Amino acid sequence: MTAFESLMAHARRTAALEQVAGRLGWDQETVMPRGAVEQRAEEMGAMEAVLHARRADPRVGAWLAEAEPPDAAGAAQLRLIRRAHERAVKVPEDLAAEIARVTSRAQGIWAAARAADDPAGFLPVLAEVVRLRREEGAALAGAGDPYEALLQDYESGARVAELRAMFEAMRPRLATLRAAVLERPAPPALSGRFDAAHQRALAEELARAFGYDLARGRIDTAVHPFSSGSGADVRITTRTDPADPFNCLYSTIHEVGHATYEQRIDPALALTPAGQGVSMGVHESQSRIYENQLGRSRAFTGWLFARMREAFGEVGVPDAEAFHATVNRVHPGFIRTEADELHYNLHILMRFDLERALIAGDLSVADLEGAWDDRFAADFGQQVTRPSEGFLQDVHWSVGLFGYFPTYTLGNVYAGCLHAAIRRDLPALDEDLARGDPSAATAWLAERVQRHGGVLEPRDLIMRATGEPPSEAPLMDYLETKFGALYGL
Amino acid sequence: MTAFESLMAHARRTAALEQVAGRLGWDQETVMPRGAVEQRAEEMGAMEAVLHARRADPRVGAWLAEAEPPDAAGAAQLRLIRRAHERAVKVPEDLAAEIARVTSRAQGIWAAARAADDPAGFLPVLAEVVRLRREEGAALAGAGDPYEALLQDYESGARVAELRAMFEAMRPRLATLRAAVLERPAPPALSGRFDAAHQRALAEELARAFGYDLARGRIDTAVHPFSSGSGADVRITTRTDPADPFNCLYSTIHEVGHATYEQRIDPALALTPAGQGVSMGVHESQSRIYENQLGRSRAFTGWLFARMREAFGEVGVPDAEAFHATVNRVHPGFIRTEADELHYNLHILMRFDLERALIAGDLSVADLEGAWDDRFAADFGQQVTRPSEGFLQDVHWSVGLFGYFPTYTLGNVYAGCLHAAIRRDLPALDEDLARGDPSAATAWLAERVQRHGGVLEPRDLIMRATGEPPSEAPLMDYLETKFGALYGL
Repeated sequence: MTAFESLMAHARRTAALEQVAGRLGWDQETVMPRGAVEQRAEEMGAMEAVLHARRADPRVGAWLAEAEPPDAAGAAQLRLIRRAHERAVKVPEDLAAEIARVTSRAQGIWAAARAADDPAGFLPVLAEVVRLRREEGAALAGAGDPYEALLQDYESGARVAELRAMFEAMRPRLATLRAAVLERPAPPALSGRFDAAHQRALAEELARAFGYDLARGRIDTAVHPFSSGSGADVRITTRTDPADPFNCLYSTIHEVGHATYEQRIDPALALTPAGQGVSMGVHESQSRIYENQLGRSRAFTGWLFARMREAFGEVGVPDAEAFHATVNRVHPGFIRTEADELHYNLHILMRFDLERALIAGDLSVADLEGAWDDRFAADFGQQVTRPSEGFLQDVHWSVGLFGYFPTYTLGNVYAGCLHAAIRRDLPALDEDLARGDPSAATAWLAERVQRHGGVLEPRDLIMRATGEPPSEAPLMDYLETKFGALYGL
Repeated sequence: MTAFESLMAHARRTAALEQVAGRLGWDQETVMPRGAVEQRAEEMGAMEAVLHARRADPRVGAWLAEAEPPDAAGAAQLRLIRRAHERAVKVPEDLAAEIARVTSRAQGIWAAARAADDPAGFLPVLAEVVRLRREEGAALAGAGDPYEALLQDYESGARVAELRAMFEAMRPRLATLRAAVLERPAPPALSGRFDAAHQRALAEELARAFGYDLARGRIDTAVHPFSSGSGADVRITTRTDPADPFNCLYSTIHEVGHATYEQRIDPALALTPAGQGVSMGVHESQSRIYENQLGRSRAFTGWLFARMREAFGEVGVPDAEAFHATVNRVHPGFIRTEADELHYNLHILMRFDLERALIAGDLSVADLEGAWDDRFAADFGQQVTRPSEGFLQDVHWSVGLFGYFPTYTLGNVYAGCLHAAIRRDLPALDEDLARGDPSAATAWLAERVQRHGGVLEPRDLIMRATGEPPSEAPLMDYLETKFGALYGL
């Protein structure tokens, strides 16, 4: 075997083990017995140690020094293997295993603390998670910024300074638009009876319409909707709220965006380093464009209005025009995952600033709740009264995801870029969507984005797909046009 | 760290990874998307390669040479680690990985072939599995018997000659009892409507009564009932047949016997080599004594009769006496998992002989169906007409389990020994069982058998628990007494 072939054989097995570790995460969130939390933490720690040792294996370093890629895809594989190897060599194995163990345990503690609105129960373990991730970031960054080093795990090539510039360009336009919208009368809310089984049946219908292949996936119920796995086994979860069917339906469309991305990667890349979505930002661009630019469009909501009246009877809204306004109702609120398109990025901008301060050591875990509540009052004009609606609402920090939040807004920005390009290329899109058929748009995304897996770097992928460098401008134009029309601005 | 401490730290992580691999098996049988079969085979192969490399690690050999156990449990841990290490060193890593890959794939092929009654679809991969396992047995056995070497994976210390002697002592007594019983009129069959949801609810009630802790387990539906996992995460499956509630109820009690064994091992042994049931024979003794000697006793079936009439209404049987006969109805049939206590061991004796011939090379896979059907006609007096009722009925060979079948009958033998000892120690047992309460008996088993995990070797464990060397005599006496009374012999 050549050095390249040896490297790929090793990397394929590592990729298979990564799928196994991911499946443990799915299991933990959906079916694991509640008494198994501590044991599962040991199991996750053991898997993480195995993966770390494989990535750091000195043979990988030796093969990398010699390997000659046969083609562009091979060169991408080498780039991804090298990045993982260099990262693993920099982080001591014991630290990696401890992070896996602590975050697995912390997730259960967070869930209990959120349920009981009890920050004190969560803060000690959160302090431990922050300390460990800061240590990891410092090991990775050398003389550089630890937070930017952590960010690379989710968005390779992203720079904190560029994200800050982009986000600061968005902030005033979002604030202005938000203020104008909130002065106008609110559209009607949905009312009716939304049986959970009917919600799940309609969610599955929507999942299929958006291209989710259930022979290579499944839909379960979990506290927090998520997508998990690559290739032939990509699973999503949803949840039902009897008063709010949009929660189930749109979180399903969102997760289907993630899941079809994984399902539509070129099968030749399966179980290789490039056989997964390239970054969290590009992942989020797929989920967001499915959910928002397609799923919440006037054309698609016209079809959905009719379909929901078939499934549930009257929904308390007189016609498709009003239903479109209801689907896109702008409402101040505390919870990120329930936020509308306009508020969503304000939630992210705030978390981006707070988590950078936590990792930099400029903000202590003990002061986090106060800092959160102050910033929320400033940006959203509301006082947080329960920690479960404040800093305890998200799972991310409990599982050590620092550097992940900004990829949500970056995903929205990429979705804005991709949507502008799709509208240019597919003039008949609204006619399809009005029939409940997003397949032309999802095929465009499969061809331009999804099939490439990790072969192209995120920024390069978006540039090639759209013909333009990524910018926040298409997203902001889309938001101002859409909400301007909906609210008569 | 001392050599013993280093060894145990390594072994704990290996034990955690074994739990992960076991969970993949659970996932495959219960929730895995059907399109994921090939990918899962790669994942299982990767896990097996990791486990093999850890067991064969030269550092383990060096630690073993130096390690001083602190106590008897430590000595047992060393014994188990040494056995796994020596086994792993003898089997090449590539062979181990290939076996994992092929058997994972073969299981799906077997399921499809059984569903379609299509032996030709299964034989090529079965030939491959036999070839690989024979190669493995030869690598393990050196100059010895490859089949006996494979047997050690399931029942350490078992000898083929001893099993043959025991089984041949049972065969004539079983044949005589069977012939006498089948000349007598059959008890009534059950009739009624047995809603699947009610079956599952009653099965869960029985599981709790027999001590299954659902905070550290769960019950799902699968084609083939099984128990999976150790310690804090031990899951069982069941299935429902609308015409036959006993299938669901008694398979649940059976799997609860396996599962509570794992749940009641001393927690100090969790995630160590001795933190699992010691052998398949001892495992089966627990499942069988729960299911048969306790669950099918006159006293317990009296309680169950009343409970089933509450759950389902009339069940077509006049009274508790007749119900006891119905539960224990002897019926010729093709399917092992549906066999009564009297026929069950005849199924095993046949498989034991056939699989020894396959591994020895005295029987080719091409001739297996014919050999099966001939032997079945001789032992059971019936002609097999469909392969799905013949050699395609069991999953075992597809997943490479050669040497596993005899542990079922050995388990029945052990159950007979343990039951005789329990009857001696607990004179009021029938009064408890008549109230639906097997807890005194299951506590006896927890104390004498289950808590020890792998600390005592199988034969030694049974001897200490019962005060006698294992023998088939108590089982045969129990069967002759029970069925003699039920059939008026």
